Amino acid sequence: MDVNQYPDLNVSSRILLGPGPSMVSPRVLRSMSTPLVGHLDPEFLSLMQDVQQMLRYVFQTENELTVPLSGTGSAGMEASLCNFIEPGDRVLIAVQGYFGERLVDMAGRYGAQVDRIDRPWGQVFEPAEIKAALQKARYKLFAIVHAETSTGALQPGIAEIAAAAHENGALLVLDTVTSLGGLPVEIDAWGVDIAYSGTQKCMSAPPGLAPITVSPRAREVLRNRKTKVANWYLDLSMLEKYWGNERTYHHTAPITMNYALREALRMVAEEGLPARFARHRANAELLWAGLEDMDLSMLVPLEYRLPTLTTPLVPPSVDEVAVRRQLLNEYNIEIAGGFGPLKGQVWRIGLMGFSSRRENIALLLAALREVLARRN
Amino acid sequence: MDVNQYPDLNVSSRILLGPGPSMVSPRVLRSMSTPLVGHLDPEFLSLMQDVQQMLRYVFQTENELTVPLSGTGSAGMEASLCNFIEPGDRVLIAVQGYFGERLVDMAGRYGAQVDRIDRPWGQVFEPAEIKAALQKARYKLFAIVHAETSTGALQPGIAEIAAAAHENGALLVLDTVTSLGGLPVEIDAWGVDIAYSGTQKCMSAPPGLAPITVSPRAREVLRNRKTKVANWYLDLSMLEKYWGNERTYHHTAPITMNYALREALRMVAEEGLPARFARHRANAELLWAGLEDMDLSMLVPLEYRLPTLTTPLVPPSVDEVAVRRQLLNEYNIEIAGGFGPLKGQVWRIGLMGFSSRRENIALLLAALREVLARRN
Repeated sequence: MDVNQYPDLNVSSRILLGPGPSMVSPRVLRSMSTPLVGHLDPEFLSLMQDVQQMLRYVFQTENELTVPLSGTGSAGMEASLCNFIEPGDRVLIAVQGYFGERLVDMAGRYGAQVDRIDRPWGQVFEPAEIKAALQKARYKLFAIVHAETSTGALQPGIAEIAAAAHENGALLVLDTVTSLGGLPVEIDAWGVDIAYSGTQKCMSAPPGLAPITVSPRAREVLRNRKTKVANWYLDLSMLEKYWGNERTYHHTAPITMNYALREALRMVAEEGLPARFARHRANAELLWAGLEDMDLSMLVPLEYRLPTLTTPLVPPSVDEVAVRRQLLNEYNIEIAGGFGPLKGQVWRIGLMGFSSRRENIALLLAALREVLARRN
Repeated sequence: MDVNQYPDLNVSSRILLGPGPSMVSPRVLRSMSTPLVGHLDPEFLSLMQDVQQMLRYVFQTENELTVPLSGTGSAGMEASLCNFIEPGDRVLIAVQGYFGERLVDMAGRYGAQVDRIDRPWGQVFEPAEIKAALQKARYKLFAIVHAETSTGALQPGIAEIAAAAHENGALLVLDTVTSLGGLPVEIDAWGVDIAYSGTQKCMSAPPGLAPITVSPRAREVLRNRKTKVANWYLDLSMLEKYWGNERTYHHTAPITMNYALREALRMVAEEGLPARFARHRANAELLWAGLEDMDLSMLVPLEYRLPTLTTPLVPPSVDEVAVRRQLLNEYNIEIAGGFGPLKGQVWRIGLMGFSSRRENIALLLAALREVLARRN
């Protein structure tokens, strides 16, 4: 084999302002060149504890079962369904964008009888609407996305929704992929049973781990299953023994990714959640003001617009793909386009974690202004 | 939250001579502090191609569908089953250690009707025996472990076994977790349909990715499924679109882990497979000679002993856990113990990838000699 085909790794220095991965701070990058210890080394077991404790802080929960799964956010979504669904179980899923659709797909694969309620992409649900839908049948589980990465909309009223789910007897599953670490996520105060996220969004560790938290009520449901969890890799009844006091071997944890997550969580803890949320909000407002100055308007009304992901509408007659290509090739800036029903309609601009910095916003606005001006 | 509880990451410098993770070379460690590009960035797409091409070299295959899955080796095992099994399918699994047992467990979870053939832990199968078992029924799939990490035994005769599987009409699934990159694995020449591995063994990248390769025959079976793959995250019919020419978004690939794997594969390619296999073999022989000098004998006869993982028998009256604790605490050396039926009976010493170096063997032998002498 001719190894000269594969020169030294040499990637461009990108400013990542898409829907994730976000930029990773030099501190976190550096942590990953730490030599490895084994996955059952006492020092790794103690690191696992640090990670769990700091994840509980970020999720604002006392749930014992709070761990980073060894996969990306999608694995977190799948674990949140496959551990609690048994074939024939009836579940309700709220769909207001792509990730709601994905929840429906996954739940069906595990044999659930899936009912759904829909809102057009970019809108959110009234909690009353969900309450009404939950009154139509008895469900094992109700799942909804907190922050829709495909649209930029933030679902309000989670506490009210949780109460409605519990009244029905259903567990509440919450997708916090694009909210955790960037805006308030109050697992215990809201009464969420299962929540998952990814590391590569507002926590600004690289992709590769999926934080998940599971309430005692949900663990009871897991314990009372009649069938084995179909998915071995994501089976929480085995994973809780590795991450719990038994430390029973299940699979080899991604050591280096856990080094990175620990460092990223330390940075979250140092900043403190209130300051972190305020920074995300203030920077988002700067971005919005700048976009409006350019006569761009947003898909999502201010009231339920995500501070972590903004979706300006593409002006008519502008080729959105060409704009993105220019931003990437000429300015090294990554933003994303819309997809599904929003294809060609919006851009998706993420200001998450370490990417949410004033210099990035100033640069993006300047670059976008130049690119759009050249096209007129 | 009191961040002072979480000081700077500061782990001991371990010499990893257990069953994995193996040590990671400074070159690979360094690659992981490279800033991230997005998972759909043209530069990442080109890196994916490099990784795929070099994986094909390591697997000795031309299989187009050769990719690193975004999970550890266990996710590779699961993908190798769940994509090809539909509920009610009859499968045959060879069990000669823990990972054979795990194959049985996983296949059952996906609704397979599982037949098994067994050999005591530490032994291997005669190909004729497998041929006979395959004549008893028609199977969708037959799975066997090439290199049993729980015992240190190397299954011979894979080409013969593949022929028998194909005669039956079954796909052959091969677990190459502890062989790939350390000893010959000839996917195409042997006729293996599906093989998987982990990155943290003989390739010496950190744990977090699972290389898998799938033959055209197996892809045909995947295409002809009547039901969706139950496991969304590991669904190869979607993953092949992300790793193929379409580059359709499925999940966010672990960017940094792919940087590491690319660098680790470059090191494999630079050394060349024949030299790499010879190094693993020569170092294993040094280790065996040294252990025999200490009057330790091996569980597995020379004939089918793995060069990558050695299992010396623990002498009677020696507390194997105490020995391992001393090696770790006083010499920073990690080796592992046996488990299941081999608990307390053997140590497991890995010489894989970057761990397979003469200095590590000299040190381990010296340390073990000292620790055992002190106990007499």
